[in-house]
Amino acid sequence: MRVIIVEEAGFCFGVRRALDMADDAIRKEALSATLGPLIHNPQVVEDLQAQGVRVVEQVADMQPDETLMVRTHGCSPDVYQQAREHGVKLLDATCPFVSRAQREAQRLCDEGLQVFILGEPEHPEARSIREHTGGRATIVETPADTDGMQIGPHVGVVCQTTQRIDRLTELVAALLPRTRTLTVSNTICNATTQRQEASLRVAKEVDVMVVVGGYHSANTTRLAQICSEVNPRTYHIERAEQLRPEWLNGARTVGITAGASTPNRAIEAVHAAICRLAGQEQTP
Amino acid sequence: MRVIIVEEAGFCFGVRRALDMADDAIRKEALSATLGPLIHNPQVVEDLQAQGVRVVEQVADMQPDETLMVRTHGCSPDVYQQAREHGVKLLDATCPFVSRAQREAQRLCDEGLQVFILGEPEHPEARSIREHTGGRATIVETPADTDGMQIGPHVGVVCQTTQRIDRLTELVAALLPRTRTLTVSNTICNATTQRQEASLRVAKEVDVMVVVGGYHSANTTRLAQICSEVNPRTYHIERAEQLRPEWLNGARTVGITAGASTPNRAIEAVHAAICRLAGQEQTP
Repeated sequence: MRVIIVEEAGFCFGVRRALDMADDAIRKEALSATLGPLIHNPQVVEDLQAQGVRVVEQVADMQPDETLMVRTHGCSPDVYQQAREHGVKLLDATCPFVSRAQREAQRLCDEGLQVFILGEPEHPEARSIREHTGGRATIVETPADTDGMQIGPHVGVVCQTTQRIDRLTELVAALLPRTRTLTVSNTICNATTQRQEASLRVAKEVDVMVVVGGYHSANTTRLAQICSEVNPRTYHIERAEQLRPEWLNGARTVGITAGASTPNRAIEAVHAAICRLAGQEQTP
Repeated sequence: MRVIIVEEAGFCFGVRRALDMADDAIRKEALSATLGPLIHNPQVVEDLQAQGVRVVEQVADMQPDETLMVRTHGCSPDVYQQAREHGVKLLDATCPFVSRAQREAQRLCDEGLQVFILGEPEHPEARSIREHTGGRATIVETPADTDGMQIGPHVGVVCQTTQRIDRLTELVAALLPRTRTLTVSNTICNATTQRQEASLRVAKEVDVMVVVGGYHSANTTRLAQICSEVNPRTYHIERAEQLRPEWLNGARTVGITAGASTPNRAIEAVHAAICRLAGQEQTP
């Protein structure tokens, strides 16, 4: 059996940077907690907890002088204010691409535009972008969400960094006839697009596609969705133990991809498990 | 036979305004020439010539103290400068919607954007918009025109006022993945869209569709194209005399529409000719 691991699979720049910052702080015994799970991967969160880093939901759960890490998704500007007031130190691991989306949304609002954020209304990244506009921007998930909405003459659009370009184009096409000027800040992260495109290429080629990553990870879930559109034998798992032998029945080629919050060792474990099930040595 | 005249057919706001300005100036014996044919309609141009208004190609063709009219399509800013230098008086009938497109293109260029004008490269309106950017903007007719072009990180788009919204959307969709911010100023004139939509509705209903207007009129030509896509029995004529009896063979319903530079009397003449050919009285 041939196993193809998508080259672009796994940690993206922002996640790698956040984990490096966390590792570094843990070494210096200077990290008490993360604001929400650091990344959407249960294994990584368990590892951090084993090293004494707890998960808190708000600044008020911290003691003065403790250090709290803001994760890649970013947070509301209120958090910076609350941290100052409570004497809590902040370690800001907001992904620079997310910071850019926050700044762009704020800038377009400040220019007086009616701003839409293309994203998932409950996703912490989309919410952090919205919070940076002081709640002025509106999160929409599909063009249909704007049906019946009052659209002003000057509109701005930004998006969650993990959105697909075709969805952004659809939203723009729906708004364009209803407004006079439309400014789109394409805040999609290229790493996401590249991972999606590379995964799609492999998914089209192989008999079975395995997507590795947290069920709560939006980008992993979307990756699984994209792959399953071209390959019905696509399976989304969090851990190697979830692999089922019957999935590989008759398969001559298997592809593996993973979301931006999936550690390399999780990808490797899945690779090894597939080779074991196929009764063959793991090829590098 | 039933004849349906599209309500939105004929002179648009900008053309009516220009003709009113010309009539007024002629009454006061204060109009010597127009810079190019005033509108793309041979009958109107002949009428003006009969009243002593000539057509010139450049300011240098004028005598000092003569009055020159700038037509709805607008002109290069150089013309205003040349008129001052030659002592020629200008009567500016640039359509206010075209002026807006000129200003928007200039504003986007001044903001440092790489600006595209969706339009016909040889059309005087598209050229006048480009000239207001000091030649910095690029006219493109279809998304394919941007293939192989270097696209910078910040792009602006405006369009000739007579463009279709779906063509604007196509261009935006082609540029969006290749840039970081994209600002679209939707400079399409609603009159054009309304005329096109109303004509399309009638063209779908009738057996034969007649489009009246100058062959050099971009918006009339596009109207004929739109109608012929839903009704193969679509005919584009400039004058009633061009109607051919066989076009009406077996037709129970005939639709009439006209471009923005088509006078009402031309529409009425076509209506009368159709009734004559059908051997019936003209119904109001």
